[in-house]
Amino acid sequence: MLQDKNILILGGDNRYLHVMKKLYNECANITAVGYPEEELTGFNIERTIISDVDFSTMDVIILPVEGMDQTGEIHPYYSPQAIQLTSAMIARTPAHCTIFSGTANNLLRQYVQEADRSLVVLFERNDIAIANSIPTAEATLQIAMEQTTTTIHGSNILVIGFGRVGKTVARLFHQVGANVTVAARKDEDFARIHEMTYQSIHINNLKDTLPNIDIAINTVPTVVVGEAELAIIHRSSLIIDVASKPGGIDFETADKLGINTIHALGLPGKVAPMTAGNIIADVLITLIKRIE
Amino acid sequence: MLQDKNILILGGDNRYLHVMKKLYNECANITAVGYPEEELTGFNIERTIISDVDFSTMDVIILPVEGMDQTGEIHPYYSPQAIQLTSAMIARTPAHCTIFSGTANNLLRQYVQEADRSLVVLFERNDIAIANSIPTAEATLQIAMEQTTTTIHGSNILVIGFGRVGKTVARLFHQVGANVTVAARKDEDFARIHEMTYQSIHINNLKDTLPNIDIAINTVPTVVVGEAELAIIHRSSLIIDVASKPGGIDFETADKLGINTIHALGLPGKVAPMTAGNIIADVLITLIKRIE
Repeated sequence: MLQDKNILILGGDNRYLHVMKKLYNECANITAVGYPEEELTGFNIERTIISDVDFSTMDVIILPVEGMDQTGEIHPYYSPQAIQLTSAMIARTPAHCTIFSGTANNLLRQYVQEADRSLVVLFERNDIAIANSIPTAEATLQIAMEQTTTTIHGSNILVIGFGRVGKTVARLFHQVGANVTVAARKDEDFARIHEMTYQSIHINNLKDTLPNIDIAINTVPTVVVGEAELAIIHRSSLIIDVASKPGGIDFETADKLGINTIHALGLPGKVAPMTAGNIIADVLITLIKRIE
Repeated sequence: MLQDKNILILGGDNRYLHVMKKLYNECANITAVGYPEEELTGFNIERTIISDVDFSTMDVIILPVEGMDQTGEIHPYYSPQAIQLTSAMIARTPAHCTIFSGTANNLLRQYVQEADRSLVVLFERNDIAIANSIPTAEATLQIAMEQTTTTIHGSNILVIGFGRVGKTVARLFHQVGANVTVAARKDEDFARIHEMTYQSIHINNLKDTLPNIDIAINTVPTVVVGEAELAIIHRSSLIIDVASKPGGIDFETADKLGINTIHALGLPGKVAPMTAGNIIADVLITLIKRIE
């Protein structure tokens, strides 16, 4: 239980509604900025504005998945009103106060460092990234089903990259009955791909397998499918890119060639907001319990 | 190869375009009724009207998935003009002529019997039904993903019925990481469900498991989820019914209770027409090759 913990939540999207409700069920005292009353009906959560927050009582401050911008503004999903955070506010917190944010820019890191507080960047954590790879992989499967006139069962799938997301995507499509080939680079990855009974190919040799592929799924955030690779892909193939911007596909060339290419970003929040919220909440609860 | 075989195709939907093209690639001589020119561009397939067909030369006649109606009319997907089939037409075919139809009513059976020809009802065949259970299960998974805010991984799924479709649905959701419980009736089914490492429950005791279920998938075409069962399901649960009409759910009561209930029919043709067409084509090619 998080009894007696004072938690300040500054903005956030529908995932954070699930986070707040889970924290509430753990008996935390929650103060929320940037949420309309109707979203929090039935929960004894204090709604306020940033200028009225008493930072000296806060054990935890939680920023949205997007963190704050270069001017210190947080843009809440449910309100047009930006929330202005300052280093003075952070400095007023008790020494043990921990700041959690989905992502962190240099300004946020500077604020926290100046006040000598602790910062946890949630989306840099492996536990969050691995847990999020499940809704990401399921959303990729959903897109693949929606965009094709064939079953996934029996289709030829290329997964590019074998990191936290690539591993989950490869496993899911394999489980559904696809013929999975994984493109990787490291010797240990090839050993693991073999152990998991998928086909493998070196990421520099994509051209050897692309002509036989029905769906290519990229997880690598640098361009690996360029002009030369696109030239030999079947025009009827589907490419799904789940890597962060700029992604791994030469989208302009793919577009010219008429290849169906989808850059799918932020999938967990889009297709499974409750699961995505629970993933964040579970990690938060574990970490907040550790705060002395 | 189906060289020298004369095949008459009377109506059909987009699945039959794939069927025709596969038969064409096997070098059959194809005559099609009820298709516009633009759908068959690039294929040397003769388009005609029913009154101009020379039935005396036909080795094979293929009716649509829906067969024909009680007046002998076939309703093609691509044309508003019905195709009138008569027993006299069937009687003019050579003695070895085989009639294939997705489904068959008594009138079609009577036509074929009177002429002493062979009738193959494709959708009564286990090979077709088992092959079709793959796109059906994938479509069910797609619907489940689209209708929920959580991942399938980790969710509690009840599959009602362990026939050709139930087996595939249970396996697919299990593979994706769901906790699968199968409701069955036969001792041998319970043994198989145990072997496949799913939970099981007797179909008469659904009430014992329904309160813990996130998604219930019914494959039984008689009402098994009635008022008593619906009363104890969580209002946030999802029910997907893939059984033929009338289905296995008391839809009226479910509607009154505000439970999200989807009666999903004809899934293979809707979500994976190419695969569904190939399933029909592969069985047709095998069976036509056996015609002496």
